[in-house]
Amino acid sequence: MTGKLIRLIKEKKSPICVGLDPSLKFIPGHIKKRTFEEFGETPEGAAAAIMEFNKGIVDAVSDLIPAVKPQIAMYEEFGIPGLKAFKDTIDYCHEKGLLVIGDIKRGDIGNTSASYARSHIGEVQIGEKKFRPFDEDFCTVNPYLGSDGVKPFIDVCRENDRGIFVLVKTSNKSSGELQDRLSDGKPLYEIMARYVEEWGEGHYEEGYSDVGAVVGATYPEMGRVLRKIMPHAYILVPGYGAQGGTAENLKGFFNEDGLGAIVNSSRGIIAAYTMDRYKDRFDEYGYAEAAREAVINMKGDINGHI
Amino acid sequence: MTGKLIRLIKEKKSPICVGLDPSLKFIPGHIKKRTFEEFGETPEGAAAAIMEFNKGIVDAVSDLIPAVKPQIAMYEEFGIPGLKAFKDTIDYCHEKGLLVIGDIKRGDIGNTSASYARSHIGEVQIGEKKFRPFDEDFCTVNPYLGSDGVKPFIDVCRENDRGIFVLVKTSNKSSGELQDRLSDGKPLYEIMARYVEEWGEGHYEEGYSDVGAVVGATYPEMGRVLRKIMPHAYILVPGYGAQGGTAENLKGFFNEDGLGAIVNSSRGIIAAYTMDRYKDRFDEYGYAEAAREAVINMKGDINGHI
Repeated sequence: MTGKLIRLIKEKKSPICVGLDPSLKFIPGHIKKRTFEEFGETPEGAAAAIMEFNKGIVDAVSDLIPAVKPQIAMYEEFGIPGLKAFKDTIDYCHEKGLLVIGDIKRGDIGNTSASYARSHIGEVQIGEKKFRPFDEDFCTVNPYLGSDGVKPFIDVCRENDRGIFVLVKTSNKSSGELQDRLSDGKPLYEIMARYVEEWGEGHYEEGYSDVGAVVGATYPEMGRVLRKIMPHAYILVPGYGAQGGTAENLKGFFNEDGLGAIVNSSRGIIAAYTMDRYKDRFDEYGYAEAAREAVINMKGDINGHI
Repeated sequence: MTGKLIRLIKEKKSPICVGLDPSLKFIPGHIKKRTFEEFGETPEGAAAAIMEFNKGIVDAVSDLIPAVKPQIAMYEEFGIPGLKAFKDTIDYCHEKGLLVIGDIKRGDIGNTSASYARSHIGEVQIGEKKFRPFDEDFCTVNPYLGSDGVKPFIDVCRENDRGIFVLVKTSNKSSGELQDRLSDGKPLYEIMARYVEEWGEGHYEEGYSDVGAVVGATYPEMGRVLRKIMPHAYILVPGYGAQGGTAENLKGFFNEDGLGAIVNSSRGIIAAYTMDRYKDRFDEYGYAEAAREAVINMKGDINGHI
């Protein structure tokens, strides 16, 4: 699946993905009004608003980008109807030709990780039949439990031609409390990066493995170091835009072939219509057009720096 | 909520919880036959089998134990119908007077962790109304992202009188790859344990805080050390039974008051009818009775050692 991602990135000249993290407060009032009238101020009403909002964004940007990254927490927040909207969003994005990176950050002991992996990037067997419960193309994985918690994801990913991104250095402020700690003179994020490179060894498409890494745009120095430690890993880079990462910061995350990283923006795209840069020209009815313009600007910004 | 957990543990003389992790392969054929006839070999059929199986277990053991620990991965594996069974299991356990520890191991950057926390141990606001999407009493939290990924869980837990258990030293074989690494001369699990004690400071009920820790029964030496570092943290102990932890191993996880730990068994209880010790006397129709006997034996075993 990494090969397909790279082909789409090249074809669309767009090493970016849009984070579909639809907090209710970003969803225009006219959408919520309509869905709350139909379903009440209920989880069903919230899920319908999320779905309508997402469709608007996806329709406006799908020709510009290779992939989206829905953050499952924003859907799980609304219980079963919310998770149904997560699944419907995946299906809708697939219909529009987009790859889907499920930002699920799951990770557990072996058997349990295998259940998560089958759910998100694999298939489950029920009697004689097989199903793909969520059916993302990629998912993010939390490595705190060590390799026996990650390997079931790798196994399922290979059986199903999918990919994973392992959390190496996350974009948040306190990520260093654990991830930057020195052990044998090396920070943990480097140790984790060595595992990522090793796990992906030999499973390459277009020169990149099926085991990628998450490294936050907010830590450009570390990005540069990690790029060299994991030459074959695709890096999923959150933290551009609203979280403070700039395009100048991103250079070191890419290899010399101009590949090797995909940069995510969530709020900076989906809530563009609320931001200073766009709010004079777009109101809430123009949220999707504002998102499209924000994607075009982000593309230009990043392509101008790599 | 920790106070309520302790009161139930004392009342039932039972520092144990049952892991409701219903893999399809443990569910008796007669149950699957019935639900597959009604719903087909589908996720709906699997979810109905899980629910019927869980009800049988819960009915058989609810008077003996204070709490259950459903592992959400086993439900998420079956997509939306599976997650509906997770929620229905929580509700059913509450009806039977049990506390529910959602084994969800979520953890993300701040905003996102807040969404997970509201979903599982808090409430979400939709327009003027409030809902509790999953409504567990406790949940497990993955600390890989550092304190800003954990604190939203603590905030939501306090607003809603719930509790959390932070992963400190997990029961699996490769947990040490990251968790045992020395940093400033101390293993990471100790560093994490100091955070746990600090996060819970001053928020005590019956002498224990609302921020507990997960420490695997398979690491008794570390359990002893961690018990002393976190005198106010309740320890949730997985890994007894099927994973290899013995009651002798568990002594060090308890404080001198006989409290401070709750030991989980999953397969050892819910699949007892398939095990050498029970299979001569129980067939698949007796799975719930076998589970009851396994709980009684586990209680005796553990109470005999603390």
